[in-house]
Amino acid sequence: MAYSESMIEGRNAVIEAFRSGKSIDRLYVLDGCQDGPVMTIKREAKKSGCQIKFVTKERLDQMSETGKHQGVIAVAAAYEYAELEDIKKAAEESGEPPFIFILDGIEDPHNLGAIIRTAHQAGAHGVIIPKNRAVGLTATVARTSAGALNYIPVCKVTNLTQTIEALKKEGYWFVSADMDGTLMYDLDLKGPIGLVIGSEGEGVSRLVKESCDMHATIPMKGKLDSLNASVAAGILAYEVVRQRMKA
Amino acid sequence: MAYSESMIEGRNAVIEAFRSGKSIDRLYVLDGCQDGPVMTIKREAKKSGCQIKFVTKERLDQMSETGKHQGVIAVAAAYEYAELEDIKKAAEESGEPPFIFILDGIEDPHNLGAIIRTAHQAGAHGVIIPKNRAVGLTATVARTSAGALNYIPVCKVTNLTQTIEALKKEGYWFVSADMDGTLMYDLDLKGPIGLVIGSEGEGVSRLVKESCDMHATIPMKGKLDSLNASVAAGILAYEVVRQRMKA
Repeated sequence: MAYSESMIEGRNAVIEAFRSGKSIDRLYVLDGCQDGPVMTIKREAKKSGCQIKFVTKERLDQMSETGKHQGVIAVAAAYEYAELEDIKKAAEESGEPPFIFILDGIEDPHNLGAIIRTAHQAGAHGVIIPKNRAVGLTATVARTSAGALNYIPVCKVTNLTQTIEALKKEGYWFVSADMDGTLMYDLDLKGPIGLVIGSEGEGVSRLVKESCDMHATIPMKGKLDSLNASVAAGILAYEVVRQRMKA
Repeated sequence: MAYSESMIEGRNAVIEAFRSGKSIDRLYVLDGCQDGPVMTIKREAKKSGCQIKFVTKERLDQMSETGKHQGVIAVAAAYEYAELEDIKKAAEESGEPPFIFILDGIEDPHNLGAIIRTAHQAGAHGVIIPKNRAVGLTATVARTSAGALNYIPVCKVTNLTQTIEALKKEGYWFVSADMDGTLMYDLDLKGPIGLVIGSEGEGVSRLVKESCDMHATIPMKGKLDSLNASVAAGILAYEVVRQRMKA
């Protein structure tokens, strides 16, 4: 699965891309631009949940490959997202208890890439990210994943809580990373599990947390509240690995 | 411990800074500049082991605060490095078995910052980095450490192997992160320990590895060789934490 970012430039092309359901990661809009077509594009962008960045004309000119951006450039992920079914199938075929990652709003592409790499190396069967409030599979994510994106399916869903509830009905248990939960060593993480990692600043969002069965806490001996999101994900993932190896 | 980067600009100021033994993190030199004073500065920079970056005149002009850089700008770390004695003292005062990190050539400031954060949160007493071949305490490191730099001493030493040998005489055991070592769960990491993490590309260097007592392997179930350096450091650090909590 090779990756290249594709840029879509100009108003009609960008509107068309959104309406066709293409997976757009980021939209660059000329700061201050308020006319009809641009408002339409911003509306479509919000609906699809992609990040919108307001930039100067110089920045757009610099990014543009065609020289005809008309104030808008969309960046599409050339990596194909997987379907939830692909992840379930991967778990089934492994012959092991399912092990998936749910990333609730990771915004830093380096963290997302590092987590995808960790998920693959820890033997997880897939990664689920939300359509909104999160970074997608950009070039930086692909690079930071060190190639893991080629091996582990990453799926984008509209509503994390609904996905969690659906998977619970199939026997998955969900554990959130949480400062105020149960010490991770005291939880049983050997069954079919979804590990839920929150965003860098906010942690796991309230609704998602409420739909989790368990809350796992990494012991903290220092004066800070938390660890880097990708480090925390790695520590929790390997607690799952350790428990399963011991079993 | 507040942080601000200080820039030293102009040939004489930069030569003076190196000769006075000031801790310089990075040196920016006008690309292609080969005259006597600049050669002297590059020589001093190499001796002190700081990173040298060759940049355009535009870049230097942009960075310059004085407008008089004469083709050279040095960036000094305003964070004070600790002495090895500070780390040993911190370990002693904790009443716990000493636990330190040795970072053998981490080059990415995000990784260094994340590892310093992890070290503090895992209850380590200090972090040792080499003078050469590594990033220093830059503003990015300070930011990524999320404040941990204020709490945990970071010491820069000239020769990691010598430092390891000296600490071994005081009862420390050293364990390197290594793909071909012993499964980390099978090692005893409860005593006074130095955890040695290698660089992103190369891992732990040969001489440093040879001076380690143990080699710890994180189980890998995916198709890649390794994890992100800061994730690996976190997983190993928390294996130390787990074993000590269990003891």
